[in-house]
Amino acid sequence: MRRDVSDLQVREILKSEFDERIKRIQIQLVAKGLDALLVYGDEKEPQNVRYLADFWPAFEKAGVVVPIEGEPILIIGPESEDFARGWSKIDKIRKVLDFRESAEPEYPEIPACTVREILEEALGAPRAEKLGLVGYNLIPVSLYEKVRKDIGKTEIVRADDILINMRMIKSESEIKLLQESYKLAALGIEKALERIKPGMTEIQVIAEAEYAMKTNGAEDLGYNLWCVTGSNTTHAIARPSYRTVREDEIIQLDVGAKVGGYSSSISRPLAIGKIPSHAKSLIKVALETEQETISLVKPGVVAKDVANKIRESITSKGYGKYIVYGPCHGTGLVECEPPWVETTSNWEFTENMVFCVDIFLKGPDIGVRFEDGIRVTRHGAEKLFDYSAQVLCL
Amino acid sequence: MRRDVSDLQVREILKSEFDERIKRIQIQLVAKGLDALLVYGDEKEPQNVRYLADFWPAFEKAGVVVPIEGEPILIIGPESEDFARGWSKIDKIRKVLDFRESAEPEYPEIPACTVREILEEALGAPRAEKLGLVGYNLIPVSLYEKVRKDIGKTEIVRADDILINMRMIKSESEIKLLQESYKLAALGIEKALERIKPGMTEIQVIAEAEYAMKTNGAEDLGYNLWCVTGSNTTHAIARPSYRTVREDEIIQLDVGAKVGGYSSSISRPLAIGKIPSHAKSLIKVALETEQETISLVKPGVVAKDVANKIRESITSKGYGKYIVYGPCHGTGLVECEPPWVETTSNWEFTENMVFCVDIFLKGPDIGVRFEDGIRVTRHGAEKLFDYSAQVLCL
Repeated sequence: MRRDVSDLQVREILKSEFDERIKRIQIQLVAKGLDALLVYGDEKEPQNVRYLADFWPAFEKAGVVVPIEGEPILIIGPESEDFARGWSKIDKIRKVLDFRESAEPEYPEIPACTVREILEEALGAPRAEKLGLVGYNLIPVSLYEKVRKDIGKTEIVRADDILINMRMIKSESEIKLLQESYKLAALGIEKALERIKPGMTEIQVIAEAEYAMKTNGAEDLGYNLWCVTGSNTTHAIARPSYRTVREDEIIQLDVGAKVGGYSSSISRPLAIGKIPSHAKSLIKVALETEQETISLVKPGVVAKDVANKIRESITSKGYGKYIVYGPCHGTGLVECEPPWVETTSNWEFTENMVFCVDIFLKGPDIGVRFEDGIRVTRHGAEKLFDYSAQVLCL
Repeated sequence: MRRDVSDLQVREILKSEFDERIKRIQIQLVAKGLDALLVYGDEKEPQNVRYLADFWPAFEKAGVVVPIEGEPILIIGPESEDFARGWSKIDKIRKVLDFRESAEPEYPEIPACTVREILEEALGAPRAEKLGLVGYNLIPVSLYEKVRKDIGKTEIVRADDILINMRMIKSESEIKLLQESYKLAALGIEKALERIKPGMTEIQVIAEAEYAMKTNGAEDLGYNLWCVTGSNTTHAIARPSYRTVREDEIIQLDVGAKVGGYSSSISRPLAIGKIPSHAKSLIKVALETEQETISLVKPGVVAKDVANKIRESITSKGYGKYIVYGPCHGTGLVECEPPWVETTSNWEFTENMVFCVDIFLKGPDIGVRFEDGIRVTRHGAEKLFDYSAQVLCL
């Protein structure tokens, strides 16, 4: 399974697809009566900026202004100019002081402009009447208030739905990047399994997966990855710790890569020596549930019907209280992005939506997760990479 | 230099020091007429929550409520309960739905409480009159507005200065963690230098440093690390790319670990083969400037005097236009935290402040950075780890 970086089928989305995304947004701006869109992103939550500019900021924040017609503008912080020029698919780049890093340096010697000036430049007009904002649940309140004050009488309306809806259905090139990313996640798990042994810390185990993915073509990690062991496996969200791997305990690996911005995640439980007897039935139910979930996902199916059936199925096996969240969540530029599949989800599955099937069962002393990526096909769903679901006992 | 994890002198701050931090905050709440403090943190910017609870959230957000007297409460999102119990130095933990991850699952089956209820519980009173907020430049506007609405007539005031001032002067145990973290950064660079060769991608080179640090005791990376090469060295902030290492070009390594929450950063330029002639003088000036900066830092010195002297010194050598930012920035739970040393900085250096001396010179086609951590001592400053500043030509 060893790969060379040159094996990567695809590493990035072409400029033409970014241009097309901007055009699709501009059509929606007309329909919604908006003069422009302001899209926010940062190092941890770059998704919407990356979707439009292919730029992933670090330390500093970033934004994209999409006017109702004409060229978009990428907003960056004071230190990111050469960095952004090296990566951005948007040519016009402008610096705004308030997009600086959280330590708030003053940069007395760096000239910068304001969001109002950038809006005027993008629109070729003195003022926007109505500005859509994408990232209302991400932009810090202090930055929002500065922008709010700066743009004066322009009305700001939440417009997250424009990008949520566009990003929900993946293009062919996005699916290719996701497939590459999932291949690398599988490789990461394989390498961790080769190296894991009693006495290693959880951090050391996950480092093996991370190293394998980054040296074999991943641009970065898909998210904050972990290996957890023993009682730490009850952590639905986790960080690897200095706890050491022991024999005859449940070990959980949650591994994902990032390629061209697109994240993967594969999760598997395993043990070195014997799988503890109280874990066996939990593993069996989690694995059956993953397979059952995949079989239920089809275009036209309402998401809450899947969530309810899966909840009933797990409950009928006696593990209802072990459920923490719904059986799938959207994935793409963020490992976990809308839409979620929950008992309240009224939307329908559609071809080329992509999900993590993420079955986590939390018992009182151990937890177990199986996770894989799937694409909704014309008639059902298929895995983005068909990695073995055999439960490993090393 | 190979280390075992068991070599780590110290991995975390003791519970007693966390208790003492809470007490120091409570004294300031009295002095400032505040009933309680609400401290915000998330995966990317956990610093203030980690400082009070030793909890570093992932995906979800977190908060700490410190009442004017009595026990603090850790606020987490719906999925983090076992995770937080495994890490937090604060015993009382409460879930709030709006501290969920950005994909905004609804969690119809998970009971949660509100920030108002948590404030009432912490204070043992029906309403706080005046609440200090730490993290106004971090908390997303949507979460802020929900909290704002939830707590009704309670006045919210910005109180970032309380934690900025406390965190600025490091304790003995914080300095020990920083020293460990710097040792690991040096080890990361050493390992990357051992492995680097032409044809490797920038991503592959930095992966060597990351792997070395994580397998030798780092709990995580200190920040978003990079190796950049050739023209990419002009990026003041950067990400490693698929560009391959070539001979006779400038290569820049920016490497840091995290131990017990505390970040390090060491940066060095190097070349394989010959250092390009136009880089030699740039490297010489950057290295001299780093040494000059360290010699200027002393208790009682006003920060802007250092920034101005360094600016004059670089300018007198003909490189004034190559300056992007001031010569030092605070460091600790974030690789770059207040205070910054800029030409506008009116504060004085004080014993046990800790800085990254960070000399980056950006030319038109290449950039060079030397970076090391220093502690302000009684009479001057000393490096947190004395790693060789010899310019490497492999």
